[in-house]
Amino acid sequence: MTTAAAGSVLALSGGVGGAKLCLGLSDCLPAERLHIACNTGDDFQHLGLTICPDIDTVLYTLSGRNDSARGWGLAGETWEVLQALQALEADTWFRLGDRDLATHLWRAGELARGGSLSAVTAELARRLGVRAQVYPMSDDPVPTLVHTDAGELAFQEYFVREQCRPRVSGFRFRGIDAARLQPSLAALCRSADLAGVIICPSNPFVSIDPILRLDNFWQTLRQCNTRVVAVAPIVAGQALKGPAAKMMAELGMPVTACGVAEHYARHYPGLVTTFVIDHSDATLAPEIAALGMEVQVRSTVMQERASKQALAKSCLELL
Amino acid sequence: MTTAAAGSVLALSGGVGGAKLCLGLSDCLPAERLHIACNTGDDFQHLGLTICPDIDTVLYTLSGRNDSARGWGLAGETWEVLQALQALEADTWFRLGDRDLATHLWRAGELARGGSLSAVTAELARRLGVRAQVYPMSDDPVPTLVHTDAGELAFQEYFVREQCRPRVSGFRFRGIDAARLQPSLAALCRSADLAGVIICPSNPFVSIDPILRLDNFWQTLRQCNTRVVAVAPIVAGQALKGPAAKMMAELGMPVTACGVAEHYARHYPGLVTTFVIDHSDATLAPEIAALGMEVQVRSTVMQERASKQALAKSCLELL
Repeated sequence: MTTAAAGSVLALSGGVGGAKLCLGLSDCLPAERLHIACNTGDDFQHLGLTICPDIDTVLYTLSGRNDSARGWGLAGETWEVLQALQALEADTWFRLGDRDLATHLWRAGELARGGSLSAVTAELARRLGVRAQVYPMSDDPVPTLVHTDAGELAFQEYFVREQCRPRVSGFRFRGIDAARLQPSLAALCRSADLAGVIICPSNPFVSIDPILRLDNFWQTLRQCNTRVVAVAPIVAGQALKGPAAKMMAELGMPVTACGVAEHYARHYPGLVTTFVIDHSDATLAPEIAALGMEVQVRSTVMQERASKQALAKSCLELL
Repeated sequence: MTTAAAGSVLALSGGVGGAKLCLGLSDCLPAERLHIACNTGDDFQHLGLTICPDIDTVLYTLSGRNDSARGWGLAGETWEVLQALQALEADTWFRLGDRDLATHLWRAGELARGGSLSAVTAELARRLGVRAQVYPMSDDPVPTLVHTDAGELAFQEYFVREQCRPRVSGFRFRGIDAARLQPSLAALCRSADLAGVIICPSNPFVSIDPILRLDNFWQTLRQCNTRVVAVAPIVAGQALKGPAAKMMAELGMPVTACGVAEHYARHYPGLVTTFVIDHSDATLAPEIAALGMEVQVRSTVMQERASKQALAKSCLELL
């Protein structure tokens, strides 16, 4: 199942939701045509290791290793080290499985040897059998900080340790002004080969914004004059996964797919050419169209492999 | 079972053999009187972690967690992460068990937060329930390099990866000229409380030499005018554990307890006051005495807990 159109497709992805669409895309496109830019704002240092949750979620999902029931991490995971860490009274709020730890340890060794996160990610993809090109958005750390009523929290403190309970008032991407876009992503934009961009149904604030804002990537994309298809991460007023809906409510935005479209239209004017919403949100289409985007209504809930492929195919046809 | 004599006892220890005597000492002395300086020349960076084999062997042994059958690591160990690392084609010649990894990860986190190796070691001892004072010889890295017919190898490359096969011609302790002795060890020497020093039956070249040479520690000890009891790590021409005998042969030294005594007498003249050899080496006593050391013959093979205690008690009585 491949599309007829030629050229490379660039997907911008956060974690679970984005990875599902990327899996669909990888089923629909030859590997050499699929490029995925992963958010690294969620990355953090823990127990001396560099943890890259979104990169790993994408790689685990594309290689069929993810635990789809639990929703994160690896299938068939064991927890021997975590238990031993608990016995040592170490921080264990970030639950590291044994198999997942092997990834982080291998990465730590490669980074300590001086490898860039891009090079290490490419090699990890190869070792996991992932043939699509998966890039960190940057080789520089750009950690997301969440402004909350409990103070400024590192993203994983907010997301995992505090389980998204604090009320959100804003975000900061530390180091984003000095960070450089991953070089292959800039090169892809300059090449005539780019057939289009897909903004996956990921959290707009903490997954997509960091990628688009980094090095003014959104303006680079805008100047490509390529089609940009964004899939709404909000369906019937709810985020299928993660805190996007809760964040929107706390930020005083309408908790709808239209709220997401407005966010993209306000911060990245003219970038999104097509906005994909779910059938259950079809009545929002005129309001979104008024923002200057073409609106397409599809099934955007991706539980089965077939639904991932169907949405991916739709997105590719819209490019 | 405690000795009547008062004052602090300082043991200098490498890994397994030294840890056995330290366990005996911890059975014979109130915890506040036992101070252990551990070799850190074996320490190395692996998969982004700082591994401290001798410190961990001493702590695991003193807390009753060591695997005495295998001779290293923790009892009841599992190997989930190692298997996953193998599947990732990562370096797995240094076999890290899951429970052991928890130690390394906790330490990595503490070091990343800026803790000194001394502070991290003291806190690890506390968490493991070890009440004796266990110190790294230094907070500065002083990695042992082994000169061999296969080139200069990092110690763990020689010891674990190459299983001590290369022929040894010498050693280098990188950074030893700039490294500072762990401050509490210097303070212990300055205090009137130091009742004596015990050089454990550890490898003289790669476990004891780094400690004694660091910051000219041997001269500091010499100036204390305290008694220094050294236990021979060679019994009947063999090392009970590790490559000491093989190294001695390759360095052209007599592979006997006397060879060890000569090494100490040549490099640290006047330091060792009493040299303890095994009954099986009793005939070497006159030759060792000729080096200017008092010689004592004891059972130095420590298989049972009682034999560890008996040798410890002998050493304490000789102070």
